[in-house]
Amino acid sequence: MLKEAIYHRPKNNFAYLYDEEAVHIRIRSKKNDLRHVILLYGDPYNWKDEAWQYKTKEMKHAGSDELFDYWFAAFKPSCRRIRYGFKCVDDERSVFYTERGFYNEAPKDCAIYFSFPFLHAVDIFRAPDWVKKTVWYQIFPERFEDGEPSINHRDTQPWGADPKKESYFGGDFQGIIKRLDYLENLGINGIYFTPIFRAETNHKYDTTNYLEIDPQFGDKRLLKKLVQECHKRGIRVMLDAVFNHSGYCFAPFQDVVKNQEKSSYKDWFHIRKFPLKEDGNLNYDAFGFEEAMPKLNTEHPEVKKYLLNVAKYWIEEFDIDAWRLDVANEVSHHFWREFRQTVKTLKPDVYLVGEIWHDSMPWLQGDQFDAVMNYRFSDTMIDFFAREKRTVDQFKHEVVHIMQSYPLSVNEVAFNLLGSHDTPRILTIANESKERLKLTYLFQFSVLGTPCIYYGDEIGMTGEQDPDCRKCMIWNEEEQDLDLFNFVKKLIAFRKEIRAFGNEGDFTFINIHPSVISYVRKNENEQLLFMINPIDQPVEVHIPIEFRGATEIWTNSFLTEYTSTINQKGFIILYSSSRN
Amino acid sequence: MLKEAIYHRPKNNFAYLYDEEAVHIRIRSKKNDLRHVILLYGDPYNWKDEAWQYKTKEMKHAGSDELFDYWFAAFKPSCRRIRYGFKCVDDERSVFYTERGFYNEAPKDCAIYFSFPFLHAVDIFRAPDWVKKTVWYQIFPERFEDGEPSINHRDTQPWGADPKKESYFGGDFQGIIKRLDYLENLGINGIYFTPIFRAETNHKYDTTNYLEIDPQFGDKRLLKKLVQECHKRGIRVMLDAVFNHSGYCFAPFQDVVKNQEKSSYKDWFHIRKFPLKEDGNLNYDAFGFEEAMPKLNTEHPEVKKYLLNVAKYWIEEFDIDAWRLDVANEVSHHFWREFRQTVKTLKPDVYLVGEIWHDSMPWLQGDQFDAVMNYRFSDTMIDFFAREKRTVDQFKHEVVHIMQSYPLSVNEVAFNLLGSHDTPRILTIANESKERLKLTYLFQFSVLGTPCIYYGDEIGMTGEQDPDCRKCMIWNEEEQDLDLFNFVKKLIAFRKEIRAFGNEGDFTFINIHPSVISYVRKNENEQLLFMINPIDQPVEVHIPIEFRGATEIWTNSFLTEYTSTINQKGFIILYSSSRN
Repeated sequence: MLKEAIYHRPKNNFAYLYDEEAVHIRIRSKKNDLRHVILLYGDPYNWKDEAWQYKTKEMKHAGSDELFDYWFAAFKPSCRRIRYGFKCVDDERSVFYTERGFYNEAPKDCAIYFSFPFLHAVDIFRAPDWVKKTVWYQIFPERFEDGEPSINHRDTQPWGADPKKESYFGGDFQGIIKRLDYLENLGINGIYFTPIFRAETNHKYDTTNYLEIDPQFGDKRLLKKLVQECHKRGIRVMLDAVFNHSGYCFAPFQDVVKNQEKSSYKDWFHIRKFPLKEDGNLNYDAFGFEEAMPKLNTEHPEVKKYLLNVAKYWIEEFDIDAWRLDVANEVSHHFWREFRQTVKTLKPDVYLVGEIWHDSMPWLQGDQFDAVMNYRFSDTMIDFFAREKRTVDQFKHEVVHIMQSYPLSVNEVAFNLLGSHDTPRILTIANESKERLKLTYLFQFSVLGTPCIYYGDEIGMTGEQDPDCRKCMIWNEEEQDLDLFNFVKKLIAFRKEIRAFGNEGDFTFINIHPSVISYVRKNENEQLLFMINPIDQPVEVHIPIEFRGATEIWTNSFLTEYTSTINQKGFIILYSSSRN
Repeated sequence: MLKEAIYHRPKNNFAYLYDEEAVHIRIRSKKNDLRHVILLYGDPYNWKDEAWQYKTKEMKHAGSDELFDYWFAAFKPSCRRIRYGFKCVDDERSVFYTERGFYNEAPKDCAIYFSFPFLHAVDIFRAPDWVKKTVWYQIFPERFEDGEPSINHRDTQPWGADPKKESYFGGDFQGIIKRLDYLENLGINGIYFTPIFRAETNHKYDTTNYLEIDPQFGDKRLLKKLVQECHKRGIRVMLDAVFNHSGYCFAPFQDVVKNQEKSSYKDWFHIRKFPLKEDGNLNYDAFGFEEAMPKLNTEHPEVKKYLLNVAKYWIEEFDIDAWRLDVANEVSHHFWREFRQTVKTLKPDVYLVGEIWHDSMPWLQGDQFDAVMNYRFSDTMIDFFAREKRTVDQFKHEVVHIMQSYPLSVNEVAFNLLGSHDTPRILTIANESKERLKLTYLFQFSVLGTPCIYYGDEIGMTGEQDPDCRKCMIWNEEEQDLDLFNFVKKLIAFRKEIRAFGNEGDFTFINIHPSVISYVRKNENEQLLFMINPIDQPVEVHIPIEFRGATEIWTNSFLTEYTSTINQKGFIILYSSSRN
């Protein structure tokens, strides 16, 4: 037994309260090393004859990555106080793993064991319920539809021309309102808008005024109408809060530019010394090294008050449903805790998504964000299905690794995207192979998390990194890939109709064929088997016993009761319900 | 190279901001497996020719426990944004360890590496400065000194009689004031008082009124005088906040007892159903299963408001310096965050110590407590020096393990005790061996953390578990062990006089002799070598080169320049200063 590989530390992804009753416990061990892991658990105050009284529960093997096996147990303690430990069993021996290390016999004193001292509902990581049922659609407003040419930027280019970094095309709120029927038909029920506040660029990430709409998009009356029209259709609205930095033309920064050390706003930013710029080097902190994006001092009481007020204003006045938080990892935890309290007090079911590209556990403890933009998971899906740079095993290992690094409750509401205004488009990454793209979508929509479609990806738009990925939306149906549109539409419909397809089922990889990605989604009443053949040859598979006779709900291949030949780049989805 | 043993995850004990400038990074590997670990680090936005630009730094081997080596690096980044990774080197090869696993070559894309996205001063774990210089003394007020017999409980026993669970002896504030000269002479500069608010028992952990002094101790006027007298002597005052549960006679609970489900206080507690008690079983949550200690619902807005008001009241009106938080682990994180904000707003340098007996990382992130009662470390010191149940190696492994499981900044202000009103007395645990006790004290006072003496331990009082450990303080000098008193007094004096003795120096074990505990404390100007011989035979040791000629500041053994025979249960402390 390799003791060095065994790891558990309470809270985070290893021990957490899933809901008001259920505790989840996980442990990691070297791959293929242990035969069983038994959880020992009980109330710390439950003693008899000077020995702590515990129950036992066999842990489930929950998956493997390259180096480790992961074990899982869920239970509902009768008391809300827990001590626990692990009996690790291999072919030769058993050892007991506790907070204080390894023992050959189960210690009698529960002080030795791990502690989850009390289950407090208020400490649970809990995103709003509606998020699990949401499919997002990201709109870059400048490029979606021009509904009101009279407010266009003076340099507006013809719709559909090749975009440059600084191009304008006239997209606006009126255009979006006009196209809501299209989105309703597609089936999405959440829109994430990149910034809409007054700014100097086409992308609006350099906010000039956080309390005004950019006049190229419309006005507040029109935003109100847009939100109302969305809500009428059951579509939630997420706005983009750029609180890490302001734009260069933000009035407080302009005051500093003008008055230098005499400005009463000089502490609103992180200025190392004056003048602001010397020999081409900035003397203030910025986003990256962007002169035009001075970093805000979010700990300054006035700045904090100002930004929290902004966060409240758009909820109170416009009834928005979610905030996406730009460069969220570079703002303090302290600020985000106060932010969460402020906005959740106002609207308890608001959804908060941080832009964090790396491991995000410190922000997902229940006191800060409901989700992060799950780029790490995006890369995994893309590398396998779209880039074809990974083996089946590597892909499965990465998926398991990421899922095991967060609580289940976090995975269920992760913001899963295949691209955004900051990445090349997924079809381009997939070398323009629509077959690869379809399989990527199939996985994205049938795994835990809440999927997001970047505008136009659903009709086969292409584009390299910015500015190419920000081309104008194509509205001419003849240029739209309607087959792809219908494929995505069908995925969205399945997610809505079959609860286990979306976020209400376990996710487990199974082994059916070495070339095939197979996984089961399962809740109390339903189960689904997905078999995806990502290679360029047909593959024959045997259907597992428990799915023989199940309903084939979608395939592009041929199936008998016992076997199937899955076409190259093909898939089969089988469904069975205990309620039948 | 055993990849399965290598572990790092940002934040917590592995990556943290030590102060406004310095970042500390740690990594763990299998014991004796790696030869070097090199840290790669840099600003995520610093790229050249599509490759991330990083610096390197050799990590220091910081100690070993039973299974692992720990590696450490501290640095002051020029920017406040960091990506980093590790080059792990063994005899055969080098691999690069990143957030996404192991690579044979250093990845060019910094998205692959670990991230510490921005260093925010506000997120630093930071206890008040005065804590590092504090030596605590715990007083159980009912048993320290009876200064005012007129307010004694009607059943008061003669001072010094054997205590029973329910005995009263008349200890009070006037008695403590009378004995402050004694404490000043000993040298302590912080007093931790177990609860003093109105309650029904002698220990007062069953609060009846959080805003009143228990009349057996005195009144508010006298508490004010006591705090002032302490402050005059440079002694800080810590009170005990029992917020997990109230006493049975707490008016809101009595209202529930009387009015059952009709009580407007029923949501102040965790009541599962009425009546409160059936067939001898409680229908409400309590501390443990104590009928007389109903658990408070700290998430109820009125309860929260009430308790936060209590916390403020004793600071505002009486100028206390610290709160010790009883059963802190069973109250929500959410409550403690609000608690911290409330009291620190009022008095920024208040010290908050949670009663947590197990791994406490989730409470020591900067947003909740400044320290916990470090019982885990107590056990380690006691098991080795007092109980003699551990080998030298086991002891060193446990010390390293605990220290590595927290940031250095946490270790520096840990509340290190050898016993309390909840444990047998240390001299009794040491089988009444004063020699063992002295070595325990020597270690406790020369290691990181802020030490606490349980009243009377310094004069050799004995006692088994409660009630025996709560005997009356002995004031008859002929019954006091003055030799022990002077030993402790000298330790306190050294801590105050020599900065590296206390909390301002590194702590590192060194190998001098297999039976001897040797460690070096070191800051920029001073270094100290401690050699402790815990066995019952003399041991001859060679003095390390860098300490030859150093000043022998304290020993009970014989020393030449090159060697020493350390007496059985002996010790030598050598001091050198670069300022000489």
